[in-house]
Amino acid sequence: MQIWNDEIIQSTYKMSDAIKDIETLFNNMDAITTAQRVVLPTGEGAKSMLYMPCIHTEKQMGIIKITSITPENPQQGRPTTQANIIITNIETGEHVASLDASYLTRLRTGALSGIATKYMSRTQSQTLGMIGTGGMAFEQLLGNLEVRPIKKVLLYNRTQEKAEQFKQRIFQSFPSLEVDIVQDVQTLVKQSDIINCQTASQSPVFEAKDVQKGTHINGIGSYRPDMKELDFHLFPDAQHIVFDDIEGVKEESGEFIEADQQNIFKFDEIDGDLQSVVLNDESLRKQDDEISIFKCVGAAHFDLAVAIGAYEKLLKNAN
Amino acid sequence: MQIWNDEIIQSTYKMSDAIKDIETLFNNMDAITTAQRVVLPTGEGAKSMLYMPCIHTEKQMGIIKITSITPENPQQGRPTTQANIIITNIETGEHVASLDASYLTRLRTGALSGIATKYMSRTQSQTLGMIGTGGMAFEQLLGNLEVRPIKKVLLYNRTQEKAEQFKQRIFQSFPSLEVDIVQDVQTLVKQSDIINCQTASQSPVFEAKDVQKGTHINGIGSYRPDMKELDFHLFPDAQHIVFDDIEGVKEESGEFIEADQQNIFKFDEIDGDLQSVVLNDESLRKQDDEISIFKCVGAAHFDLAVAIGAYEKLLKNAN
Repeated sequence: MQIWNDEIIQSTYKMSDAIKDIETLFNNMDAITTAQRVVLPTGEGAKSMLYMPCIHTEKQMGIIKITSITPENPQQGRPTTQANIIITNIETGEHVASLDASYLTRLRTGALSGIATKYMSRTQSQTLGMIGTGGMAFEQLLGNLEVRPIKKVLLYNRTQEKAEQFKQRIFQSFPSLEVDIVQDVQTLVKQSDIINCQTASQSPVFEAKDVQKGTHINGIGSYRPDMKELDFHLFPDAQHIVFDDIEGVKEESGEFIEADQQNIFKFDEIDGDLQSVVLNDESLRKQDDEISIFKCVGAAHFDLAVAIGAYEKLLKNAN
Repeated sequence: MQIWNDEIIQSTYKMSDAIKDIETLFNNMDAITTAQRVVLPTGEGAKSMLYMPCIHTEKQMGIIKITSITPENPQQGRPTTQANIIITNIETGEHVASLDASYLTRLRTGALSGIATKYMSRTQSQTLGMIGTGGMAFEQLLGNLEVRPIKKVLLYNRTQEKAEQFKQRIFQSFPSLEVDIVQDVQTLVKQSDIINCQTASQSPVFEAKDVQKGTHINGIGSYRPDMKELDFHLFPDAQHIVFDDIEGVKEESGEFIEADQQNIFKFDEIDGDLQSVVLNDESLRKQDDEISIFKCVGAAHFDLAVAIGAYEKLLKNAN
């Protein structure tokens, strides 16, 4: 069994790879078999283990992502979420690789936003507003940078110190990007062509009324029914709503579940899932003044796409 | 993440450890959380991936056993079953170890037979009859040797060449054991104090009428509903029937499922599961002439017991 840690994977497998591999997977979803993920509680609250298996019959590869969620970890300087992916060659039955999957999980989530942004936002979007500058944020930036000519990034975070750190991190990788920290989220919302939310918020992080015509929004938080980072009053104003995984959003995404219950929005009104958008292969956006929303909760087959992609590239580099 | 292969595990963690660790677990089953195992088909017939997660809340450890089943593998000189166990420290969320689990799976199955033999067979059992000398057989021998003063081993296998190879293997490890290969299974059944069956047979491998009073039987095969290595006409003659995992046997073990359907035996007639026997801590056998049967299908918590036991011992040896 080959073992690769986050550092090696990160230096080998990039955002452009992840976007390409997920789009390729969308063209071959018949080859995918996924089981319901298994959740085992391991303590109080959200403390748990998640197990997400998935098979690619054409590539003859299977993966399982094993994720621990330890909410009290940040107090000890450890990450809340720690993930590992085991890859099995299902032709020979051999367990061929163990990959750290923290970076890969962030990367595939950023790639999903990138793909959505490509098909849903205005082509000339130049200002990206980021609400939440935590663990998932950097790859969200990468996903957007990959597909749009972003010149300016606006940051908003509850704890300003973290926004400052994130600004420094952006500067180190992209010194020519203009990055501003805003004090009020309203400024960010009004000025951004694309708004990317990645928070654990249980209430809306901005107000629907502030969203300008033409804005595209990526919602990455709200991966539990009690989380509601997007203001659902925006949903009736949006011409396009796309999910990465419809069943996942129905089960997990707090603001959409509540909006559906309150009849502010119905699940059957969406444009479909991201796969159908990619297969259609043309911009979902028809007018510059449309508002569009992409909601992402993740699914095992996205992990599979990047894990196998990374495995193949790592193997090639090793030989 | 620490990685240990079969060879290192095999040289470190022994049958006596496995028996002790499984008996210890039986005294602490309240600490165990198990999810339904996940099965994903990966090809024709039985070709599949199995995922078995399990948590030990007191030890703050979780495992998942990942098993590939590749029926055509032996034709290419590869094993049908290949297993790996990932161990997670659920206190910190860290994925701490990857263990080859082929030996551990055979070992825990042998340990379960050993524990059953200890509580169910005659104390002075000296002759062990083994039907089937395939991949699981050696650790079945070890389990019985650990708990009874076995002097003579009778072997029966459909392919005699494999019986010869197995006899050689026994001789290398236990030169003082008398080992005879028998040509007809009837001889083996009539002469054995303990009969251990480990076959993939879909029909009974011996006849009930040949079983002598006082015999104890361990049934290790029949892990699918289409497998029926034990003659269910024996069940009404048995004073004691014990399962390793009642729910597992009800779902998987062909001869018991059919016997129950035909009213030759009912699942509520058993003495209980192996845990209850161990907790009661006295021989289940009350008379020398009783017939007893132990049926074993395996379960995630047995894998957990040996995986954590092996991990702790390997870690101690490494330091």
